Amino acid sequence: MGGGIKEEEESLSVTLDLLKKKMDDFSKERDWEKFHSPRNLLLALVGEIGELSEIFQWKGEVPKGLPDWKEEEKQHLGEELSDVLLYLIRLSDMCGVDLGQAALRKLQLNALKYPVDGSSNEYENVNNNNDTAGAD
Amino acid sequence: MGGGIKEEEESLSVTLDLLKKKMDDFSKERDWEKFHSPRNLLLALVGEIGELSEIFQWKGEVPKGLPDWKEEEKQHLGEELSDVLLYLIRLSDMCGVDLGQAALRKLQLNALKYPVDGSSNEYENVNNNNDTAGAD
Amino acid sequence: MGGGIKEEEESLSVTLDLLKKKMDDFSKERDWEKFHSPRNLLLALVGEIGELSEIFQWKGEVPKGLPDWKEEEKQHLGEELSDVLLYLIRLSDMCGVDLGQAALRKLQLNALKYPVDGSSNEYENVNNNNDTAGAD
Amino acid sequence: MGGGIKEEEESLSVTLDLLKKKMDDFSKERDWEKFHSPRNLLLALVGEIGELSEIFQWKGEVPKGLPDWKEEEKQHLGEELSDVLLYLIRLSDMCGVDLGQAALRKLQLNALKYPVDGSSNEYENVNNNNDTAGAD
Repeated sequence: MGGGIKEEEESLSVTLDLLKKKMDDFSKERDWEKFHSPRNLLLALVGEIGELSEIFQWKGEVPKGLPDWKEEEKQHLGEELSDVLLYLIRLSDMCGVDLGQAALRKLQLNALKYPVDGSSNEYENVNNNNDTAGAD
Repeated sequence: MGGGIKEEEESLSVTLDLLKKKMDDFSKERDWEKFHSPRNLLLALVGEIGELSEIFQWKGEVPKGLPDWKEEEKQHLGEELSDVLLYLIRLSDMCGVDLGQAALRKLQLNALKYPVDGSSNEYENVNNNNDTAGAD
Repeated sequence: MGGGIKEEEESLSVTLDLLKKKMDDFSKERDWEKFHSPRNLLLALVGEIGELSEIFQWKGEVPKGLPDWKEEEKQHLGEELSDVLLYLIRLSDMCGVDLGQAALRKLQLNALKYPVDGSSNEYENVNNNNDTAGAD
Repeated sequence: MGGGIKEEEESLSVTLDLLKKKMDDFSKERDWEKFHSPRNLLLALVGEIGELSEIFQWKGEVPKGLPDWKEEEKQHLGEELSDVLLYLIRLSDMCGVDLGQAALRKLQLNALKYPVDGSSNEYENVNNNNDTAGAD
């Protein structure tokens, strides 16, 4: 994974659009577009969520930053997180959704739904009456 | 969602890093960081995958581009795709994983695993012996 | 898997309680109870849902009864469905939930929510306004 | 949920076959069979897994038996666990899989894979090299 200024700059500039284009090229080059229907991709995404969950399943609570994980474990984690991301981007593309714009818009909706000094608190809600919570 | 040149430019420039920063600010402003342990966020991510699946669950196969979906359905879809993305980015951040770099690296690994003219074909594998398939 | 009258009788008599006891014995004999916290089991359940999804992910729509699937594919499917069931039963047990009673009660609630000749139709709802649907 | 000897007896006798028949009757009475293709049901199952995860998502680790949960929370949990079970049973039925027999067979396979005094330990494996673990 190296490091240094150049990589950090690259990291800052990884756009959703770049990854979308790379996934599209990858699929075209292998003639895999025919497999990429929305529901096929959705189930593939669920499959990757399963693999991500398997990494955490027997560990009990783990602290932020994963201080006790071995380098190979963190690398494996990065791969599974990436698989989820790549299928999510591909699914969005095949559905005609501009994921970057949608995410910016959702952040605005969330800010309206949960004002900084407001009485609305998603976590209180969850603990008190089991409502849906989170980014949603 | 408007349109025009300015929005398209913005869309092209939505980086994972920008969304990570926005999620971090959002959490800090609301003092929600204490809830964002890795496994809490992972389960929240699974919750959002569930909401995404509910959109597609009774529809049977749907064609690419979702030509028959109403605008409000596509907007709802964009929101659920965004929720998945935002929790995924937050989970990666709380695990200390640079998701953009990890995704670029995973694409390189995938290109090695599935060469363009190679005999290796993930979909053939799946159909023949139920191996894991996809981006993985 | 054999067949014949005896097996059919056995099949009819597989209770949730029997499977719960077998999972409990299995865990005790291997000293695995310490791993079976509710959230560990929940993530293991999600992992199995992922494996189940992988079986279906590249297939497009498949007809009921899976007429074109090879015997080994159906056997693999049975194993993944079972993994989901066994973790679900174990999770319920570790949460102190009587799953059999809860399921009978939920069926009664569903019958009230969706009367046979009523105007309420979960699938209509879904298609019209993206509400949650299904057994729920 | 009442209690008493009669209910306990009923609980002990809740078979997978009984729930399968009830789901089948329920679907036939409402003319919902047409919606119950394997992949529709699979996505509905994923949706319910999401709702189950939402219950646990912001809680951090929770002890077995959920001693601090309110009665209404446990009842809600029972409903979500039931939704997962009912869709799983329906999916198995629509795939032509005898779930009870499959589960008994899987338990036998697991006993062979993880002998009581053997050196094979799924949890060790997980912690050392991130292999899949669990009932699988």
